Amino acid sequence: MSILVVGTVAIDSVKTPFGVREKVLGGSATYFSMAASFFNKVNLIAVVGKDFPGNYLKLFEEKKIGTDGLQIMDGKTFRWKGCYEYDLNTAHTIYTHLNVLQKFKPQIPKSLKNSEHIFLANIDPELQHDVLRQVTRPKLVACDSMNYWIEHKRKALEELLPKIDILLLNDAEVRQLTGETNLIKASRAIVRMGPKAVIIKKGEHGAIYFSRNSHFIAPAYLLESIYDPTGAGDTFAGGMVGFLSTVKKINETSLRKSIIYATIMASFTVEDFGVNRLLHVSKKNITARYEQYRRMTKF
Amino acid sequence: MSILVVGTVAIDSVKTPFGVREKVLGGSATYFSMAASFFNKVNLIAVVGKDFPGNYLKLFEEKKIGTDGLQIMDGKTFRWKGCYEYDLNTAHTIYTHLNVLQKFKPQIPKSLKNSEHIFLANIDPELQHDVLRQVTRPKLVACDSMNYWIEHKRKALEELLPKIDILLLNDAEVRQLTGETNLIKASRAIVRMGPKAVIIKKGEHGAIYFSRNSHFIAPAYLLESIYDPTGAGDTFAGGMVGFLSTVKKINETSLRKSIIYATIMASFTVEDFGVNRLLHVSKKNITARYEQYRRMTKF
Repeated sequence: MSILVVGTVAIDSVKTPFGVREKVLGGSATYFSMAASFFNKVNLIAVVGKDFPGNYLKLFEEKKIGTDGLQIMDGKTFRWKGCYEYDLNTAHTIYTHLNVLQKFKPQIPKSLKNSEHIFLANIDPELQHDVLRQVTRPKLVACDSMNYWIEHKRKALEELLPKIDILLLNDAEVRQLTGETNLIKASRAIVRMGPKAVIIKKGEHGAIYFSRNSHFIAPAYLLESIYDPTGAGDTFAGGMVGFLSTVKKINETSLRKSIIYATIMASFTVEDFGVNRLLHVSKKNITARYEQYRRMTKF
Repeated sequence: MSILVVGTVAIDSVKTPFGVREKVLGGSATYFSMAASFFNKVNLIAVVGKDFPGNYLKLFEEKKIGTDGLQIMDGKTFRWKGCYEYDLNTAHTIYTHLNVLQKFKPQIPKSLKNSEHIFLANIDPELQHDVLRQVTRPKLVACDSMNYWIEHKRKALEELLPKIDILLLNDAEVRQLTGETNLIKASRAIVRMGPKAVIIKKGEHGAIYFSRNSHFIAPAYLLESIYDPTGAGDTFAGGMVGFLSTVKKINETSLRKSIIYATIMASFTVEDFGVNRLLHVSKKNITARYEQYRRMTKF
């Protein structure tokens, strides 16, 4: 029942109105696997450079995240630098240095080819195809993408959609992919493109799940302090796939629950810079916040 | 158990990306009373000019809204013209002609002085004070305001707050009133200023209820077509106070339910221009949408 994630492991520098952090551990696969590790064994498929700090590798070990599929290549690790204004919903990229990511070819170790729960984090859709070609009959494939791939690799992305179960995008990406402003119409258009369901991530305004037969709205968890929204979307996916990997049957009930766990995990991430908050969360904290969320939304 | 509302009755002109309407019935008290009339008898305290169309008066009659407190003064009715861009969350005012509203002094007819449920719609807080001086022991006082009064009549508004039960504001107004960006901190600051609770209206992103002991988040009802957001906030208040006027006891449970009814009523209003949609909604439609909302949010 283990989880496989393919995505980026990065060295991030970030500035928000609440502080600055240089060269911290980041990347979509990092946030995802940290969040999912609270629920189940996660295996990481990614690449880093020879410069990747050993103490960051240790953080994966501490969370028992499998790194057999983590390639260490000659060269520098993928680096991203970004900043946020007071509107924490929008990241402004200062630079993206792909470095070793340019040569990345995901190789799924033999022992992981029958992984049942797969998350294709935000990378080139052609690499996402590569991953699906290497695995056998997963129970769940969830997938993220971004504006860049929608614009520059639309065909590869469209060909991927019928092969996945759940597509996760933010509201702007959903509108870009479909040309529809209204989120119901846009969601319906996406489901027609192939995936069984789409989840629209709206940051501080929550998330919407939309499938052929139903839709579900989950407001975000209300927080008093938000320091750094980096990684919130990947943490969200980690909470979702993590929880779904623990249930006997993926159905409407477990999917809805998984979106609440996703929301809760994301709420932790943004309370500190980088993965700091995730390193100090306990299962007890998660359960407590889940119960508090239930109280906050019950009527 | 009847409801009293003091506010504006207006003649609105509005332009949205989906059309233009000239000189339609509008005003805070209008939207409120139309929405609340589905739940209980509503009495209107407002002023119009001699130019006010008879067929608009008839609309109030049709909804059995009491107009004994509707003054008809020499002069022209209050007029507002506004437009919305594709971001329907922000209204841009083209003009506001106060006309007879400048001379308005709310007079509560004797028979209405013991009204139990009062809504002080968005008008000068000094007039809101006037109303409270004229009524005897209401069970519930809810109150709206706006950026203009927060800036220009802050003292009168602050003196009003300890006299009301629930303050309704949008997120920008909550931040302006308190100087706090974070909505939890801002809500806490407002509750310290006097009201038992505050409701933050976030338009398409739903509403947050915050009292001394609890908070409650309600996402908006998902809609496929939004034509005109004018009056959504007042309709919201009408649904809320309307429902609360029908319950034996106003407590956490009934308050939360009232916020869902508020959300539902607002969802109808924005589906057509002006009050058009509210004129054609049935109680059955309201119940059906309430049940659909429950399905949409259950987990």
